[in-house]
Amino acid sequence: MVWDDELHEECGVFGVFHHAQAAMHTYFALHALQHRGQEGAGIATSDGVKLYCHKGRGLAAEVFRGRELDRLPGENSIGHVRYSTAGGDVPENVQPLMARSQIGSIAAAHNGQIVNANVLRQRLEEQGSIFFSSSDSEIILHLIQRGKGSMMDKIAAACRQMEGAFAFLVLTEHSMYAVRDRHGLRPLSIGVFDGGYCVSSETCAIEAIQAQWQRDILPGEIVKFSEQGVQSCFYTAERTHHLCAMEYIYFARPDSTLDGINVHTARRKSGVLMAQKDLSAGLAADIVVGVPDSSLSAAAGYAEVAHLPNEMGLIKNRYVGRTFIEPTQEQRDLAVRMKLSANRDVVCGKRIVLIDDSVVRGTTSQRIIRLLKEAGAREVHLRIASPPLWWPCFYGIDIATRKELISAHMDPDALAEKIGADSLRFLGVADMEQIYGRDRCCYACFDGNYLTSLYDHEEEVRTT
Amino acid sequence: MVWDDELHEECGVFGVFHHAQAAMHTYFALHALQHRGQEGAGIATSDGVKLYCHKGRGLAAEVFRGRELDRLPGENSIGHVRYSTAGGDVPENVQPLMARSQIGSIAAAHNGQIVNANVLRQRLEEQGSIFFSSSDSEIILHLIQRGKGSMMDKIAAACRQMEGAFAFLVLTEHSMYAVRDRHGLRPLSIGVFDGGYCVSSETCAIEAIQAQWQRDILPGEIVKFSEQGVQSCFYTAERTHHLCAMEYIYFARPDSTLDGINVHTARRKSGVLMAQKDLSAGLAADIVVGVPDSSLSAAAGYAEVAHLPNEMGLIKNRYVGRTFIEPTQEQRDLAVRMKLSANRDVVCGKRIVLIDDSVVRGTTSQRIIRLLKEAGAREVHLRIASPPLWWPCFYGIDIATRKELISAHMDPDALAEKIGADSLRFLGVADMEQIYGRDRCCYACFDGNYLTSLYDHEEEVRTT
Amino acid sequence: MVWDDELHEECGVFGVFHHAQAAMHTYFALHALQHRGQEGAGIATSDGVKLYCHKGRGLAAEVFRGRELDRLPGENSIGHVRYSTAGGDVPENVQPLMARSQIGSIAAAHNGQIVNANVLRQRLEEQGSIFFSSSDSEIILHLIQRGKGSMMDKIAAACRQMEGAFAFLVLTEHSMYAVRDRHGLRPLSIGVFDGGYCVSSETCAIEAIQAQWQRDILPGEIVKFSEQGVQSCFYTAERTHHLCAMEYIYFARPDSTLDGINVHTARRKSGVLMAQKDLSAGLAADIVVGVPDSSLSAAAGYAEVAHLPNEMGLIKNRYVGRTFIEPTQEQRDLAVRMKLSANRDVVCGKRIVLIDDSVVRGTTSQRIIRLLKEAGAREVHLRIASPPLWWPCFYGIDIATRKELISAHMDPDALAEKIGADSLRFLGVADMEQIYGRDRCCYACFDGNYLTSLYDHEEEVRTT
Amino acid sequence: MVWDDELHEECGVFGVFHHAQAAMHTYFALHALQHRGQEGAGIATSDGVKLYCHKGRGLAAEVFRGRELDRLPGENSIGHVRYSTAGGDVPENVQPLMARSQIGSIAAAHNGQIVNANVLRQRLEEQGSIFFSSSDSEIILHLIQRGKGSMMDKIAAACRQMEGAFAFLVLTEHSMYAVRDRHGLRPLSIGVFDGGYCVSSETCAIEAIQAQWQRDILPGEIVKFSEQGVQSCFYTAERTHHLCAMEYIYFARPDSTLDGINVHTARRKSGVLMAQKDLSAGLAADIVVGVPDSSLSAAAGYAEVAHLPNEMGLIKNRYVGRTFIEPTQEQRDLAVRMKLSANRDVVCGKRIVLIDDSVVRGTTSQRIIRLLKEAGAREVHLRIASPPLWWPCFYGIDIATRKELISAHMDPDALAEKIGADSLRFLGVADMEQIYGRDRCCYACFDGNYLTSLYDHEEEVRTT
Repeated sequence: MVWDDELHEECGVFGVFHHAQAAMHTYFALHALQHRGQEGAGIATSDGVKLYCHKGRGLAAEVFRGRELDRLPGENSIGHVRYSTAGGDVPENVQPLMARSQIGSIAAAHNGQIVNANVLRQRLEEQGSIFFSSSDSEIILHLIQRGKGSMMDKIAAACRQMEGAFAFLVLTEHSMYAVRDRHGLRPLSIGVFDGGYCVSSETCAIEAIQAQWQRDILPGEIVKFSEQGVQSCFYTAERTHHLCAMEYIYFARPDSTLDGINVHTARRKSGVLMAQKDLSAGLAADIVVGVPDSSLSAAAGYAEVAHLPNEMGLIKNRYVGRTFIEPTQEQRDLAVRMKLSANRDVVCGKRIVLIDDSVVRGTTSQRIIRLLKEAGAREVHLRIASPPLWWPCFYGIDIATRKELISAHMDPDALAEKIGADSLRFLGVADMEQIYGRDRCCYACFDGNYLTSLYDHEEEVRTT
Repeated sequence: MVWDDELHEECGVFGVFHHAQAAMHTYFALHALQHRGQEGAGIATSDGVKLYCHKGRGLAAEVFRGRELDRLPGENSIGHVRYSTAGGDVPENVQPLMARSQIGSIAAAHNGQIVNANVLRQRLEEQGSIFFSSSDSEIILHLIQRGKGSMMDKIAAACRQMEGAFAFLVLTEHSMYAVRDRHGLRPLSIGVFDGGYCVSSETCAIEAIQAQWQRDILPGEIVKFSEQGVQSCFYTAERTHHLCAMEYIYFARPDSTLDGINVHTARRKSGVLMAQKDLSAGLAADIVVGVPDSSLSAAAGYAEVAHLPNEMGLIKNRYVGRTFIEPTQEQRDLAVRMKLSANRDVVCGKRIVLIDDSVVRGTTSQRIIRLLKEAGAREVHLRIASPPLWWPCFYGIDIATRKELISAHMDPDALAEKIGADSLRFLGVADMEQIYGRDRCCYACFDGNYLTSLYDHEEEVRTT
Repeated sequence: MVWDDELHEECGVFGVFHHAQAAMHTYFALHALQHRGQEGAGIATSDGVKLYCHKGRGLAAEVFRGRELDRLPGENSIGHVRYSTAGGDVPENVQPLMARSQIGSIAAAHNGQIVNANVLRQRLEEQGSIFFSSSDSEIILHLIQRGKGSMMDKIAAACRQMEGAFAFLVLTEHSMYAVRDRHGLRPLSIGVFDGGYCVSSETCAIEAIQAQWQRDILPGEIVKFSEQGVQSCFYTAERTHHLCAMEYIYFARPDSTLDGINVHTARRKSGVLMAQKDLSAGLAADIVVGVPDSSLSAAAGYAEVAHLPNEMGLIKNRYVGRTFIEPTQEQRDLAVRMKLSANRDVVCGKRIVLIDDSVVRGTTSQRIIRLLKEAGAREVHLRIASPPLWWPCFYGIDIATRKELISAHMDPDALAEKIGADSLRFLGVADMEQIYGRDRCCYACFDGNYLTSLYDHEEEVRTT
Repeated sequence: MVWDDELHEECGVFGVFHHAQAAMHTYFALHALQHRGQEGAGIATSDGVKLYCHKGRGLAAEVFRGRELDRLPGENSIGHVRYSTAGGDVPENVQPLMARSQIGSIAAAHNGQIVNANVLRQRLEEQGSIFFSSSDSEIILHLIQRGKGSMMDKIAAACRQMEGAFAFLVLTEHSMYAVRDRHGLRPLSIGVFDGGYCVSSETCAIEAIQAQWQRDILPGEIVKFSEQGVQSCFYTAERTHHLCAMEYIYFARPDSTLDGINVHTARRKSGVLMAQKDLSAGLAADIVVGVPDSSLSAAAGYAEVAHLPNEMGLIKNRYVGRTFIEPTQEQRDLAVRMKLSANRDVVCGKRIVLIDDSVVRGTTSQRIIRLLKEAGAREVHLRIASPPLWWPCFYGIDIATRKELISAHMDPDALAEKIGADSLRFLGVADMEQIYGRDRCCYACFDGNYLTSLYDHEEEVRTT
């Protein structure tokens, strides 16, 4: 395939409709969604006459350093923060994408991954379309442009052609549209403030700009915001409700509430469930240590039930970011230690229950355990707040291929030995269902039950 | 019209085919073409398998500061420097544009202006195409994508749909194409070096990388460079040969030779012709002063014939560039003086023949004359090395609208009084023809004889 | 006083002696000390012949983006990260300061605050010295330059003239010196690795580069590292041992161990002590929430003893940093919300024990309590893990003047009402002594028992 | 000598006293002086109460990109542009230098070179001073600080200790001082505007801000500008008047008039004198070509007298500046061609008189001649508008050491052969005296008659 740099695009989107200083509020909201992507940021606005756009690589605060917000007038706005994956870090991929047309401009910001992207691209190219980016967002724009009827019709027709995970916003001169795929794989919520509206990948950004959460957009729903108010329709009758479990497990911010479940609370509950099992099994330990930041909630839950001190045995360096110099091979080990440090006085001589959110390749777990043992930890019992990852994700979570998923090739005991853990337990799928509800989440990465056809990716799953 | 930021795109293009370090040579060549555009620069390369591209706003030296050239492998390359006009300074317009397709990528770099751009865009949009830039280059890519047959056929078909001035390069994984419009409005020449080829807007860049000028591309010609060697065809039988006169008058570098005429030599000749007339008319003066840089050649020619000292009465500040702070209204006059200074000791008490290349709005001439008079010049006789500008250009030269063209509304004597000149003479159209040949150049901005239909612009010409 | 921009200089210093890639190790160590200062960073090295220096404003990762480390050769190195206070953010203040002399260069990196700086400056100026910065580090260099005898003698003589808090490193062509003031107000520890040495403000940086902590430098000690090994002397017989309590309370990283006490463990203990009191007093609450990041340790300790869930009720945005745009007055409230968010689902309807490390002006506490209440918190009982701040610090902690210290003017109950807390309790001074030892820390900001004369500041303390 | 990065500091200084927007005028003036130095720029201002300063590396337009001028209030101001020499490009060397003192601040901007700098530094260091830069400006500040009496007395005493070339400005809270060394080696002139004053290295900057030139500062003069008006004194009775000849020959801008002689006019005259000699000698040539930019004046003079066309045979690329990428060895030849191009059509087949200003190492001349010959020039007769350089300069002109001066080791005929010229003639010393006056300029680099003792440099001169 020539097209070798396709992307997993777990990102964050935010929109404002009919509110003063739309760009400024979007900018502040992008800060609250920044954990969903640090590669690029952008905002498009409309003032009822024209669209405006500014975007660039880096954090929102880097892209909007000076007066850029002043040059984005209007009461309507969509914004985007972009996750970085190898190969896709080209300027053309930074969103929102804005198509300029003689009959009116249109901008789109998209989160998710379209599994039939290759099929759609090929068909569009055969029909004469050209692509400048590898972003799924460009496919959406092409499909809309080729649709018939009203913009609502065009968007609905586009959605019916796309399979996979998507939550996207479309901005025109007069309206804003918010769309969620028919399985609800990616989150999208509506907030209200001062008579205006906002739409966000996560509720934390709605809170951040002091708007009130109103409701979640439903799977398969298209919501139109215009001067005529809010209209809604479903683009298909075939709808389920399966939010990606990984959103809860490690992607979303703990203060977000996705489809009714608070992230921190859910993670805490996973810690509680794991502690109950260990208690039954009679595990003897001195302290609980969570890997910061995503596992601190689970660690707190575990510690409480196990009646063990919840200690800050690992410290994450807040200042080691994207600008970190590329280390030579010789320096790489030092560089890892920059990001995470063991608190020697806390862990030395202790039997530790170490809580982490997931194991992908196993290398990170191995490094953390080594860090703790070198700092004097007597035992490290690793508890993972999710089931073993057996299958790759094609809906936007960047988890690697099946070949790289260590749990697909090794049982927990073998894995424990490999990574140096004194014991290793995963959260069970049943526990997951107890927390998130049976059949309410996509657990495909754990059980291989993909919600859609996988198109070109079918073979990848089958052969590895 | 929604589409309000259309651009005049006089730019520079350069291509290399089958030569080691193609990107590096293109980079050096872009320096030599930098006078054709300072807004943006970019290079796309192909290594026979894949296309690579890096581009950005600013000078070539700013866009390629570090290791970017190392990340542009391959023996084939096209580059672009972009001229800045108000409204069009958005990142999407920076060239080369690169379309990524599943059947192969394609990059284009374009100089000129397509007069039926609106018509073509509208038709393409109706067929389902979307546009991200306001660059004519994007139209070219769309037309090619929708063509049938070989790439040569597709490019030829695209050219037949476009009317206006264009000289562009197309790069694919395996080939490079160079195209010049059927009137030859924009220059394009071929050079050879070490068994490889280069193509350039001006010959100065061919010299700069030590290649040998081979020939100019002919009006209506498409030249294909591939592993099979060089092939050429004409996309139409309706061909004339009318290089834009403004290329000679002020746009091109003096050491370029366009369609057989050296720029410096031609400018010098215009000075000679003006001096002969003034001699006959018995003009009494002490010194000749050319406005740097474009009028220094004509000034030298004038001085020689008039037996007057050719003095450096005006100094151009080499360091006042794009980064100059935006002055407040109060500071604007000072800012003008930053760019050009009078040499008081040289001009004080003198009767000056001041040579400039053209008069557009008259305001610049007025400022220069005031500068000289404030420095003590006794008389300033302004001689313009081109005929009065009466008509706007739609082929890529950014001359303003007819309403703004002062010569369209004022005869030379009235104009002289308005701008404070003691006398004012223009080069005659007959003089132009003597220098450049009768019917060998486009003189539309002087005589209104446009070579093509003007489409949407017809009205603009007629009503102003 | 003309000299109006004197600085409180709580910073971080790190040195390496006799180890390969000294600059690189110092760079990694500065990352681990980055929490001590984000305004500027710099590294000076010596290769036995010459000194080299690179420094700049911003984070270490911003100052050392590219090849700068490659241009800092040698086996010896000192580095500095600098804390930002208003007025002092000028490039001249960035450290290390390097004086170039014909008899050899010398660089210094300093943490702390010299209380008789004005007296020393005035005397030096009368003797003919000139100052380019407002950094205490420059005073140190002047005093050394004017000393007699060996470099050790010069440094000792300089130290005897300085009063206040200081921990500094001096680098010459051949040696490195590490100095701690006679009260030990600022921390400084020695580590060993591979036959070389390192010196650090905090042990976390020694761990970070995989060196082994060897010992803390003693109050009044000067340690010389040279080819002859390590030598040590005391510059005065009048020595006490009073590390600044604020280092433990909020400044240092939780994984550092300062003068034998681990920071996280000490903070945790403060939470335990507060919980015990509240238990006795019968406080009824539902959850414990720590203000991230500095109060999470205390919150964990409190929750454990109080048998309450330790919840993530407040989320700190990791991406809101120095580059944040300056908000207009109207935007300021939004900007505050960017840094800290309440987790609505967690706090809504709850009676919260909120743990924070200190109260300075009261405005931050007020904002946090409002945030929680607006998110639905039923009660907020604020517990401060340190005694009330009654006195300003002149030893380097940027706590504001006495007038601004709200606890100096209001008892806890009045303050609770003012800031909207349902109750407010501080840690007692006796609790502090239980944790840190009686007479082992400087508690001047709590009890006004300054360890030194305050010179020009005396009046400030007395009159406010 | 440890101190290995001493600098030749030919730079530009500009000051404003008692004029609104002093910083802004200084900024515009620094543009006009930018040719004197592109490495760094800075401005210090005073508002009668306090000094302010902003400076940085690069062009004035790069250092003052945004709002920096707004943060430089006051009616008095001094500015500096700095020339780049290897080794001295460290931030500490950027001027103005500002010393902050408890009894008042002081800033200095300096052009020239103090030949007894080492002696002075050593003495000052022995007295307890420390140095942060290698700038002579820092020596000046130290000497002033150690002086007695009024500021005028202190400056005079400082000047009496310094030997060499200097023209410097000193700014205090209330006054500005302008000083020129006792030989007048570096230029310095006063202008007036709107009741205020300005002082400039060259008159072109006085013109640029529309001030009127009033007079040149005399050798050995100190001019004080204060609320009491303008006062002047001489710091010594031993004064001569020998402006550096190189200022006229290549350093100054053609529109400057230094000590009564216009630069362009003087250069033109050198061309005239050379042409007269060649006419007598019967040199047969077709065209005259000047090396841009510094030799265009001389070329015009030569062409006029020789009745030869003055052609633009060499083109200088305006866009190849400081940001040019560092070429690999392989790319270096291409890089040279970027800066200068031959105009093939103009020079091909021609016998050329090539005018350049000076020959230092001979390598540049050799490259230019090769360039012309490769472009088809039949003969190249090189005429140098200054005598052979036999001696190094210690007064601030960066000409290299004696060993490198090719004319010190080779007579013109041998040199012509080496560099590929068909003939080579220099301007005679007698011609120089005819143009600039006998004993009115320093010709030390031509005749070795240094005006001062050379201190440490004596040996360098004698042994090479």
